[in-house]
Amino acid sequence: MRSLKSKPDLNTLYEGIVNGDRVLLGKGITLIESSLGEDIELASTLLEKILPHSGKSLRIGITGIPGVGKSTFIESFGQHIVDGGTRLAVLSIDPTSSVTRGSILGDKTRMEKLSKDQRAFIRPSATALTLGGVAAHTRECMLLCEAAGYEVVIVETVGVGQSETAVRSMVDFFLLLMIAGAGDELQGIKKGIIELADGIVITKADGDNVDAAIRAKNVLVDALHFINGHATSWKPPVLTSSAYHGTGIADVWSMVQRFDEQSRSHGHFQTSRMLQNVSWFNEFFSDLLYSNLHIEDSLKELKRELESSVAEAKLPARAAAKKLMKAYHDMIRRSDDQ
Amino acid sequence: MRSLKSKPDLNTLYEGIVNGDRVLLGKGITLIESSLGEDIELASTLLEKILPHSGKSLRIGITGIPGVGKSTFIESFGQHIVDGGTRLAVLSIDPTSSVTRGSILGDKTRMEKLSKDQRAFIRPSATALTLGGVAAHTRECMLLCEAAGYEVVIVETVGVGQSETAVRSMVDFFLLLMIAGAGDELQGIKKGIIELADGIVITKADGDNVDAAIRAKNVLVDALHFINGHATSWKPPVLTSSAYHGTGIADVWSMVQRFDEQSRSHGHFQTSRMLQNVSWFNEFFSDLLYSNLHIEDSLKELKRELESSVAEAKLPARAAAKKLMKAYHDMIRRSDDQ
Repeated sequence: MRSLKSKPDLNTLYEGIVNGDRVLLGKGITLIESSLGEDIELASTLLEKILPHSGKSLRIGITGIPGVGKSTFIESFGQHIVDGGTRLAVLSIDPTSSVTRGSILGDKTRMEKLSKDQRAFIRPSATALTLGGVAAHTRECMLLCEAAGYEVVIVETVGVGQSETAVRSMVDFFLLLMIAGAGDELQGIKKGIIELADGIVITKADGDNVDAAIRAKNVLVDALHFINGHATSWKPPVLTSSAYHGTGIADVWSMVQRFDEQSRSHGHFQTSRMLQNVSWFNEFFSDLLYSNLHIEDSLKELKRELESSVAEAKLPARAAAKKLMKAYHDMIRRSDDQ
Repeated sequence: MRSLKSKPDLNTLYEGIVNGDRVLLGKGITLIESSLGEDIELASTLLEKILPHSGKSLRIGITGIPGVGKSTFIESFGQHIVDGGTRLAVLSIDPTSSVTRGSILGDKTRMEKLSKDQRAFIRPSATALTLGGVAAHTRECMLLCEAAGYEVVIVETVGVGQSETAVRSMVDFFLLLMIAGAGDELQGIKKGIIELADGIVITKADGDNVDAAIRAKNVLVDALHFINGHATSWKPPVLTSSAYHGTGIADVWSMVQRFDEQSRSHGHFQTSRMLQNVSWFNEFFSDLLYSNLHIEDSLKELKRELESSVAEAKLPARAAAKKLMKAYHDMIRRSDDQ
């Protein structure tokens, strides 16, 4: 009985999800996150069925270093969105969670009010390193949420490792949260993150911190002239907000909506989605290519040896690559079809 | 007779190069750049023989948009280096040259004085798109120059496409040339380039342009606080120079030497070289993996079809990747060993 309950059949899942059943959506996500062979097959079929119903949400990525107030911001921002009558899903990517069982697993307690709101669906990440990278599951979960009728999907990243790039590649709007430091300087800016942003919000702009936030904002606006990450005419705005007092939150939502409108009317939105799909496919394919290297220990061992010879300049890179390639081909010829 | 002269045997080449023979070094580079099957084999053997003699130079990458005064700067900077008694090789990467036969082929006329100096070896790029990317040949030529005793190798990039990243990944010090605009703004900054730089020089700081260059420098120093590309304690300096008057050139060389000293004493130099070698190997291997996709037209066609289905969200990325992988494996099984 329990196994039937915990593993509904494909049609039940599909029907439930497209009809917005929260429990079945949750189970669908669990299926996608599963690493069992039979589940992977099932998840793949579910995704094919769900695909025509997906794609209709506005996808927002949110990043910022720990301490920037991400949960509080998303709680406040999310509340503003659902209060406007929009259904919202919040997902998160945490490449560390499989190792540390990190804080992000406490999402539901972090976003206390939002998680109780029936118009919001919050799903903490339990992402392990899998084929297609940390991001693959989150992307697929996003498709499920869209099929279930959520009109905005927020994907939060903890801001470590490559998670920002991963999130950037799956969302329409990428929001960077920053915080004014003890001086006026902005803290914790990771290399290359600013140019990924479609908008920046300086958080905790309240109390004694307001002036520092405004000064930091001005410095940042100047710096943005040097960081020209946008091929389109969109210039990433810099806003300040206080999630605590709720100030600036409506402005952030207006900015996102303005971007959405503008990029749809210029066709950038649709182009970007198509490019994202294609690069997602290429990422998967690339992961599959490389996963072959892990099928046989002898191949892994050879790769390590070659890397070490190349590192010490005992073997030219080109010659080493050819040796590995030959062993790779031999391995595929020995192996059965997948 | 002519063919003997134009294609010396492997030992003649090897001996000539390690003894600093400029003509044979030139022929060695031509061999590496050749796309003939027999030459590729020969080049590969030459590289293996040369490898133990390579690695001893300081490798400097120089980039900047057209109009920044790269040739004039390198002429002046290079002259300063050879005048100090150091042997210098100048190579260039031009991903466009195979298409446009671009201006860089005129290197020897561009650097008129330097090209006549016996302590300098200048080799324009004639790079075609090859296995291992545009950069592969330049890297290998660099090894040959090192084996021939050149103590500093400058690799110039024309600043288009991915050439900066390619050069960044093969040098010890990456120098970005910029120029003050009509206002105080700095012109032509490509996305993500500033954070690759180990040092920045604002060129053409002479005459009426001196004040603008200094103001631009100050703005840039402020902006660099936001662009923290360095894991080490090195903070990329911003200098001004006039190649025309020769001012600031000695400072640039001092900066590079200071970096060299510091990074060697901290062990960063050696680590970085080893990491570069390993990623070079991985790039080659990756190129070999993907080159399989071009062996059979049917596979290329399938990839295009799948990309288009995925772009239009008719097929999930994961499912499409698996289909392509299966066809890839079948192709390898059908093919002979390489």
